[in-house]
Amino acid sequence: MAHTASISQLQTPPWALVNGDLVPYTDVRIHVGAEALTRALSVFEGMKGYWDSAGEVFAIRSPRRHYDRLCRSASLFHIPIRFSYDEFLAGLATLAGELLVPEKDLWFRPTLFVTQGHWGEATVADLVVTAFSQQKHDPDPMRLGVTTWRRATDVVLPTRVKSSANYVGARLARIEVRRLGYDDAIMLNDAGRVAEATGACVLIAQRGRIATPPTSESCLDSITVDVLEVVAKDLGVPFDRRPIERTELLAADECGLAGTISELTLVSEVDGASYEQSGLLAQLRQRYLELMRGDLALPGVDLVPLVDGSRQPVPAGAGVRVG
Amino acid sequence: MAHTASISQLQTPPWALVNGDLVPYTDVRIHVGAEALTRALSVFEGMKGYWDSAGEVFAIRSPRRHYDRLCRSASLFHIPIRFSYDEFLAGLATLAGELLVPEKDLWFRPTLFVTQGHWGEATVADLVVTAFSQQKHDPDPMRLGVTTWRRATDVVLPTRVKSSANYVGARLARIEVRRLGYDDAIMLNDAGRVAEATGACVLIAQRGRIATPPTSESCLDSITVDVLEVVAKDLGVPFDRRPIERTELLAADECGLAGTISELTLVSEVDGASYEQSGLLAQLRQRYLELMRGDLALPGVDLVPLVDGSRQPVPAGAGVRVG
Amino acid sequence: MAHTASISQLQTPPWALVNGDLVPYTDVRIHVGAEALTRALSVFEGMKGYWDSAGEVFAIRSPRRHYDRLCRSASLFHIPIRFSYDEFLAGLATLAGELLVPEKDLWFRPTLFVTQGHWGEATVADLVVTAFSQQKHDPDPMRLGVTTWRRATDVVLPTRVKSSANYVGARLARIEVRRLGYDDAIMLNDAGRVAEATGACVLIAQRGRIATPPTSESCLDSITVDVLEVVAKDLGVPFDRRPIERTELLAADECGLAGTISELTLVSEVDGASYEQSGLLAQLRQRYLELMRGDLALPGVDLVPLVDGSRQPVPAGAGVRVG
Amino acid sequence: MAHTASISQLQTPPWALVNGDLVPYTDVRIHVGAEALTRALSVFEGMKGYWDSAGEVFAIRSPRRHYDRLCRSASLFHIPIRFSYDEFLAGLATLAGELLVPEKDLWFRPTLFVTQGHWGEATVADLVVTAFSQQKHDPDPMRLGVTTWRRATDVVLPTRVKSSANYVGARLARIEVRRLGYDDAIMLNDAGRVAEATGACVLIAQRGRIATPPTSESCLDSITVDVLEVVAKDLGVPFDRRPIERTELLAADECGLAGTISELTLVSEVDGASYEQSGLLAQLRQRYLELMRGDLALPGVDLVPLVDGSRQPVPAGAGVRVG
Amino acid sequence: MAHTASISQLQTPPWALVNGDLVPYTDVRIHVGAEALTRALSVFEGMKGYWDSAGEVFAIRSPRRHYDRLCRSASLFHIPIRFSYDEFLAGLATLAGELLVPEKDLWFRPTLFVTQGHWGEATVADLVVTAFSQQKHDPDPMRLGVTTWRRATDVVLPTRVKSSANYVGARLARIEVRRLGYDDAIMLNDAGRVAEATGACVLIAQRGRIATPPTSESCLDSITVDVLEVVAKDLGVPFDRRPIERTELLAADECGLAGTISELTLVSEVDGASYEQSGLLAQLRQRYLELMRGDLALPGVDLVPLVDGSRQPVPAGAGVRVG
Amino acid sequence: MAHTASISQLQTPPWALVNGDLVPYTDVRIHVGAEALTRALSVFEGMKGYWDSAGEVFAIRSPRRHYDRLCRSASLFHIPIRFSYDEFLAGLATLAGELLVPEKDLWFRPTLFVTQGHWGEATVADLVVTAFSQQKHDPDPMRLGVTTWRRATDVVLPTRVKSSANYVGARLARIEVRRLGYDDAIMLNDAGRVAEATGACVLIAQRGRIATPPTSESCLDSITVDVLEVVAKDLGVPFDRRPIERTELLAADECGLAGTISELTLVSEVDGASYEQSGLLAQLRQRYLELMRGDLALPGVDLVPLVDGSRQPVPAGAGVRVG
Repeated sequence: MAHTASISQLQTPPWALVNGDLVPYTDVRIHVGAEALTRALSVFEGMKGYWDSAGEVFAIRSPRRHYDRLCRSASLFHIPIRFSYDEFLAGLATLAGELLVPEKDLWFRPTLFVTQGHWGEATVADLVVTAFSQQKHDPDPMRLGVTTWRRATDVVLPTRVKSSANYVGARLARIEVRRLGYDDAIMLNDAGRVAEATGACVLIAQRGRIATPPTSESCLDSITVDVLEVVAKDLGVPFDRRPIERTELLAADECGLAGTISELTLVSEVDGASYEQSGLLAQLRQRYLELMRGDLALPGVDLVPLVDGSRQPVPAGAGVRVG
Repeated sequence: MAHTASISQLQTPPWALVNGDLVPYTDVRIHVGAEALTRALSVFEGMKGYWDSAGEVFAIRSPRRHYDRLCRSASLFHIPIRFSYDEFLAGLATLAGELLVPEKDLWFRPTLFVTQGHWGEATVADLVVTAFSQQKHDPDPMRLGVTTWRRATDVVLPTRVKSSANYVGARLARIEVRRLGYDDAIMLNDAGRVAEATGACVLIAQRGRIATPPTSESCLDSITVDVLEVVAKDLGVPFDRRPIERTELLAADECGLAGTISELTLVSEVDGASYEQSGLLAQLRQRYLELMRGDLALPGVDLVPLVDGSRQPVPAGAGVRVG
Repeated sequence: MAHTASISQLQTPPWALVNGDLVPYTDVRIHVGAEALTRALSVFEGMKGYWDSAGEVFAIRSPRRHYDRLCRSASLFHIPIRFSYDEFLAGLATLAGELLVPEKDLWFRPTLFVTQGHWGEATVADLVVTAFSQQKHDPDPMRLGVTTWRRATDVVLPTRVKSSANYVGARLARIEVRRLGYDDAIMLNDAGRVAEATGACVLIAQRGRIATPPTSESCLDSITVDVLEVVAKDLGVPFDRRPIERTELLAADECGLAGTISELTLVSEVDGASYEQSGLLAQLRQRYLELMRGDLALPGVDLVPLVDGSRQPVPAGAGVRVG
Repeated sequence: MAHTASISQLQTPPWALVNGDLVPYTDVRIHVGAEALTRALSVFEGMKGYWDSAGEVFAIRSPRRHYDRLCRSASLFHIPIRFSYDEFLAGLATLAGELLVPEKDLWFRPTLFVTQGHWGEATVADLVVTAFSQQKHDPDPMRLGVTTWRRATDVVLPTRVKSSANYVGARLARIEVRRLGYDDAIMLNDAGRVAEATGACVLIAQRGRIATPPTSESCLDSITVDVLEVVAKDLGVPFDRRPIERTELLAADECGLAGTISELTLVSEVDGASYEQSGLLAQLRQRYLELMRGDLALPGVDLVPLVDGSRQPVPAGAGVRVG
Repeated sequence: MAHTASISQLQTPPWALVNGDLVPYTDVRIHVGAEALTRALSVFEGMKGYWDSAGEVFAIRSPRRHYDRLCRSASLFHIPIRFSYDEFLAGLATLAGELLVPEKDLWFRPTLFVTQGHWGEATVADLVVTAFSQQKHDPDPMRLGVTTWRRATDVVLPTRVKSSANYVGARLARIEVRRLGYDDAIMLNDAGRVAEATGACVLIAQRGRIATPPTSESCLDSITVDVLEVVAKDLGVPFDRRPIERTELLAADECGLAGTISELTLVSEVDGASYEQSGLLAQLRQRYLELMRGDLALPGVDLVPLVDGSRQPVPAGAGVRVG
Repeated sequence: MAHTASISQLQTPPWALVNGDLVPYTDVRIHVGAEALTRALSVFEGMKGYWDSAGEVFAIRSPRRHYDRLCRSASLFHIPIRFSYDEFLAGLATLAGELLVPEKDLWFRPTLFVTQGHWGEATVADLVVTAFSQQKHDPDPMRLGVTTWRRATDVVLPTRVKSSANYVGARLARIEVRRLGYDDAIMLNDAGRVAEATGACVLIAQRGRIATPPTSESCLDSITVDVLEVVAKDLGVPFDRRPIERTELLAADECGLAGTISELTLVSEVDGASYEQSGLLAQLRQRYLELMRGDLALPGVDLVPLVDGSRQPVPAGAGVRVG
C-alpha cells in the first residue's frame, strides 16, 4: 500500500519501465528518503519516436545522442550508469510495443532517479522510462512573455544537465507569465540576455538568417536545435549561434521554440510583439516534420526503427533512416 | 508493491507521518509522475526537539517560526498549505510519542511534496514528516573547503526557500571538497563572497565581534542564527550581519557553522587556515545548548514542550520555555 | 503659434513659472533642438505643500533639501544653476498664490530644462515650475508587480539624479505590469535585488522592524524616506537601510511606497503576495500625515509656510514648523 | 509666443517638417508637460543623403532600413506610428527640396516625440524631421579616451532603440574625456568590454581582419556598419562581429568610428595609443564614400534618389542605386 | 657587482634591514629568478613612527596590528613567516636608531620577498625593511579623478592582502588621471562603486556623518581607518561602513583619504566636484595628529616607543601610549 | 655582495643577457626599491627554439610575434622599449650560442623589469633574458582541477599583458588544486566560464571540432593557439573561438593545454572527468611538433634560425622556415 500517491500526469499509461522491467505505471514510486526527493537528484531525457508516413515503421530520433546526453548528465552529477546503449534502446522498444497506438506518436521520458546513497557516496540510481502518446496535428502558435526569473549560470546549476531542479525556476516563470495569459515564458540568463523558454530553445529569424543562443548563454545543449541546423543548412539558410538580447527577440521577424516535444513550434507573440507565421521558420518546421516522418533524409540525422506497424521489434540496425 | 524503492536514509524509523496519519516509514513513496519528482517541487523544514536536562520534558525549538517559514516557502513556490499550526504541532507530538527514546533527541523533517497538479495549476501537496534520532554528544570540529560551485541568486533559485533543488549544487560542492578530505563545503555567492555551507550558515569571530552574512548574500534566513544572535547579545558580544569575503573568512580568529542540526558547530579549518577552538564561538555554543536543555531562558526564544518523560503529549501552551 | 503642442498633463493649470515669471501654462514649450529634447537633459524635483489642519497656513515640506538635491542633480549633470534658494522659494510662493484652492494641497514640479549649449559646452538651463492640485483623501492600497526591466547602476545612469531619462525604463516597467492589472512596478537593480518602484521607494515591515534599501541599491536618495525614518524612530520602531531581495519583499508582513507624492502609500499585493494593512506602516503613514498637517512636530523635519489662508505670502522664516 | 526657447542647434535651417507639414524651424516646440520632456520619450533616426559625383541626383542611403528601425524603436517603446514608409520618404523629399544647396549634403533627424498620453496609455507621437547641411570634405582623425561611464544593458535602457535617453550617459562621457583634450569617448559595457563611442560604433583592424562588437555588447544595431561589412567583403577583408576588450582596442593596428554621420572616421588615438592612418580602414572609408557618391554599387546597399539637381522630387522607384 | 640596478626610490637611506641584519641599502637586491619577481610574490606593510611633541620619544603606531596583518597577508599567500613579533619590533628599533633624525618622522616598509621555492613548494621569504624620512608639515589637499581601471574582487586578487600585484592596476589608474592633472585616482570596484584610492581609503562626510566603504567593497582592511573610527566616535561623530556610489562621492560635503602614509589627507576635488576643507574631516585629521604626537590618548589605539630622543632603544613595554 | 639572494629556478644556467650583455646568471638582481618589486612591474615573453630533426639548425618560433607582443605588453603598461627587433633577435642568438646543448631545446624568458621611475614617470626598464633547457620527450598527460580563484577581467588586470602580477592568482590556484593531487588548475573568468590554465590555454575537442575561448574570455592572446589553428585548418578540422562553460569542458571528448612551453599537452582528467588520448588533439600535437622540427611547413608559421649545429649565428633572414 502506498501513500501520497495521486498521479499527476494527465495521461495514465498502463506500463512503465523500471530498470528494464515492465511495471504497472501507478506502482512506480520513490521512497521519500531517497536523494531523488531530498536533494532533487534525477536526470532525464525527453525522446520522441515517430510513425513514418506509411504507418509501417515507428522510429526514434537520434537515440544515441540522447543516450550520450543522459550519460553526460549523470556523470556531471556523479550518478553512475548501469546499462548499455543497447539495453537502453531495447527497453524503449519494449515499452513502445506495449504503449503504441497507430494514430499517435510517442514521447519517452527516461529518468535516472537516485534511490540510494548520500552526498555522492554509494550512489545508486534507477532508470525509469515513462512514455506518453502525442497527437500528430500541428500545435497552435504560442504566445510568450519574458519572466523576471532568471536561468542559472553553469557554476550554480548547469543548464547542460537535464535535471528536475531546473524546473523549479521554470515553473515559477511559467506561473508568472500565465497570469498574463501567455502560454510559456522566455527566461533571461544572468547577463539579461535570452536563455531559453521553460522547456525549449528559442530561435529567431531576421533578414534571411536564423539565430539561436549558444549553450554558453544558459540554454540546453539541444539535440533538436542541432537537427534544425542541419535542415536549415540544407535549405541554404544561414544559422547563427550567438547571444541574443531581449529587445532583439522582440524586434525579430520570426520566432520559434525548438525541443524534442516542441519540435519547432512557431511563436506568434512575445510581450505583445508579434511575428510572421509563414516565413523561414514555418518552412523549417515543415522540413523537420518531413524528416521525422521519413519523407526526407539528411546526413547527420538518424531515426532508428524500434517497432514495425504490428508493434513488433525491428532488429537492431535495420532500416535506420540516416541521410 | 513498489519499485525503485531502496531506502537511502541511514536510519529506518518505524513510522512517519503523512498528512497527519502515522504510516510505516518504508511505505512512504511518491509517484514518479508527481511534480515532487519531475520538477523537484518540495519544500521542507528541519526542526529539532530536545530533552531537558532532567529528561522530563521533550520540547521543540521555535516551532511557530518553523511553521511560518514552511508556509512562506510553500507560498513563494505557489504550493497551497492545508493544515493549521495546531495540526502541525499535534502531528509532531504524535510522531515524537512513537519515535522518542530517552537518551536521544529528535530531528524532524516536515516536507511538503507536490503530488498533484502541473505548472502551478491544481497543485496539491502532501505533508510528510520524518524524524530521526540525534546523539547528544558534541560533534568534532569540522574541516571545510571553499567550493567552485556557487549559490544561486534570489531571482534564479531563492535560498530563502528551503527546497530540495538547492541541494543539487550543495551535493556537487560537498563531493568536490570531500575529495580533498574536507567534511563540508563553503559556497560563495554570485558576487564571490561567502554565502553559506551546504546546509548551515557561517559565523566568524574576529577581534571580539561575531559576524555572519545577511540573507541578501544568498544564505538561508536561519532561525538558529537568530537564536544565536539573542544569545550573543545576552553575552554582550556584538553580532553583525554584513557581507563577508572569502579571505576575511580565511583570516578570521574563529569560525562556526550554525543550523538546526549543526546547532553551532565549531570549524577547525577552512582551506588550510585554522581557527581558535575556545573563544567566543565555543562560549556561544555552550550557552546555546544550555538554552536548548532548559537550563537557561532568554526572551524571544521559545521551546514548546511536545511530550513528557513518559512520552505522553503535553497540553498545548503548558510549560513553554520562553525567556 | 506652436506645433506638436497637445498638452498631455491631466490637469491644465492656468499658470506656470518660467525663470521666475508667471507664464500661461500652455505657452511653456521647449524647442526641439534643445538638449532637453535631443539628449533628455532635464533634472527635476517633486515637492509638496500642505494646508495645515486649520486651513490657515500652506507650508512646503523640506524645501531646502529639495533645493539642494536639485542643485546636486544639476551639478552631477554639469548643468549650471542660476538662482538662489530664496529666489527658488519665492517663486514657489508666487505660483502657490495663483494656483491654490482651499480644499486641495499642491504638488510642485520644478524642472531644469537644458535649452542652450551642446555636450556640456555653453550649457544654459531654464527653470520651469509647474504645480498640480492634490486631493487630500487617502489613496487606495496599491497592487504591484515585479518587472523584467532593471534600474540602471550608478555608472550608467545615476538614480541619485532625478532625471527624465530614468523614466524611460520606469514607463516600460509600468506598461508591462499594467497588462497584469497591477498599478505599478517594482524594479530590481543590476544584482537582482529590490531597487524601487517606478516613482517611489519601497519599505517593508517584518517582525517589528521597518527596512528599505540604501541608495547604493539603485534607488533615489529620498527625502520622504528620511522623514519617515525620523517618524519611525519617534515611534520607537527600528528602521534599517539594507539590501532587500525580491523574495524577502514577497514574504514580508507589510509593504509600502514612499515618495513626496505617494507620501506613504500602503501596498496590498506584490506578485500575488498580500500584505497586512493595519500594522506598522499604517501607523507610520498616519503619523506622517499628522506631521504634514502641522498636528505634530519632529526635530529635523521642517515645513516652511508659503502662503496664508488668503493666499498671501508668508514672510520668510515666519512660522516654520520644525520640531 | 514661446518661452524657454533659445535654439541650441548650431545651424538654424528655415524649415522643419512636423507630421508632414513644413513649419518654420524656430516654431517647432514641445510643451513641457509632454512625455517627450517629462519621461524623455522620443526615438529618432539619423539619415544621410548624398549628392552623386555629378551633382545631378541627391539620394538617401538605406531609407527603408532607417524607417524600419524607427518603427522598431517606436514599437519597443510602445509608441504608435501614424505614417507609412511612402509618406515618410515623401516628407524627406519635401524637406530636402527646401533645404538643399548644391555644394553640401544633408543629414536628416526624423524624431518621434511623445506629445500626448501617460505611461503608455493614449500615447500620441508627432514626427518632427529636422535636417542640417553637411560639408563634403574629410574630417580629421579623431582622438578618443575611454570613459568611466558605462553603456546600459538591454534590460535597463536598450541601445537597440535610438532614444534621447541614451545620450545622458553619452554626454557625461564626452564631458569627461574632453577635459583630457579628447574629441570623443569610448564607452564600455556592463562587462567592461568595448560598447561604442558616444554616437558611433567602433571598428578595429588587426592582422588583416576588421572587427566590431555585435549588438549584444551594448552597441547600436548600426546600418552603417552593415554597409561597411558589405564593402569589406567586397574588398575581400574578413569582417568579424565579436566582443572586443579595452586593451585589445588599445593594441589594435587601426581604429575607426562608424555611423551615419561619422561615415567611417579614422581614429588617431585612444588613451594615448596611436593607430595607423593608411591601412584597411582608410581603404574601407574610401570605398564607402565612392558608394555613397554613386561611383560604386554593391548588392544590398541602396541609395534612393529624393530630388534631382534642380531640387525637384524624383519619382518613387526611379534610379535607386542598388548594387 | 650587480646589474639592472638603478635605485628608483626618491630617497637613498644608508641602511636597510634584511632578515634582521643591517645591510647597505643599495646592496639589497633580489635575483630575477625568485618568485618575488617572476610571480610578483611579495607582501608588505607600511608603518609609521612619530616623534612626540616634545621630541623625546619616537613611537610607532599599532605595530602589533601591522605585524598581524603582515602575517595574515603572508598566510593567505602561503608564505611562511620566520620571525616573531618581538624580533620584528626589535628590527624596526634597530633601523630607526640608524636612520632617524630629530626633525622628521619615519615610514617603514617591511616587505616579505619570496626568494626560494616554486608554486607554493619550498617557499622561503626574506624580510626586508626599508624606511624613509617623512616631513611633519601638512600636505596640500588632493585633487582626484575616477579612473576606468577597477579594483579586483576577492576571488581574483584580494585587496585584503597588501601585495605588490595590487599596484599594477593602481599605477595604470594613476597614470590615467595624472594626464588630467589629478594627483591620484579613485578606483571603483567590480560593481562600479567606490573601492579606494590607489594607496589609501576614501572617507566622505555628509550631513554630520562620516562614511567609508567596508572591506567587502574591495578596499584594504585599513588600520588607519580603524583608528580614525575611534577618534570620530570620541568626537561624537557617527562613522558608517557602507557601500558608497561614485555619484554619492561626487555629491558629498567633504572627502578625505586615509592611510598610514596619508594619515587623513583632505581632498579638494574629485572629477571637478569640490569639497569643504574645514568640516568634520579637518577636525578628525587634527585630532588624529594629536593622537600620533602623544598629545591625546584613546582606548584601542597604541603607540609603542621604539627609541628615545637620543635614538637609544626604549625597553619593551615601556611607555606605550594607549588610551 | 648581495642579499636575499638564493636562486629559486630549478636550473642555474651560467649566463643571462642584461640589456644585450652576457652577465653571470647569479648576478642578475633587482634592487628592492625598483618598481619591478614594489609594484610588480615586469612584462615578459616565453619563447621556444627547436633543433630541427637533423640537429643542424636551431630555430625560434614566431619571434616577430613574440617581440610585438612584448612591445604591446610594455606599451599597455606604459613601459618604454629601448631595443629594436633585430637587437632583440641578436640577443637571443648570443644567449643560445652560450647555452645550447645538442640534445635539448631551449626556452627563453625575455623580461622587462622596471628598474627606474615612479608611477609612470621617468620609467626605465631593463631587458633581462634568461633561458632554460628543455627535454625533447613527450610530457605525460596532465590531470587538472578547476580552482575557486578567478582570472581578472580586462579592466582589472589585463590577461592580454603577460605580467608577473597575473601569476599571483595562478599560484593560489595551483596550490589549491595540487592539494587534490592535480598537476595544474583551470581558472574560470569573471562570468564563471573557462578562462585558461595557470600558464596555458585550454582546447577541447567534441564531435569533430576543436574549440578554445577567445581572448575576451580572459585568456592570453596566445601565439601557440594561433599556430595550432593553422595546423588544425591544414588538417581540415574546424577550429572555433567561443565561450566554453565549465561543464562543457568536463563533458568534452578531449582536452589539451596550449602554450609555448606546453606546446599542446594532452589532458587526461579535469575534476575527475577523463578524456580520450588519441583523438584530434593527439593528432594536432603530432603535427605541431613536426612543424617545430622543420618536418612540415605551413603558411603563416615561421621558424627563424638562430644558430647552426655548431652554435654559430645564422645570418639574419637565412633559412626561415615559413610555409
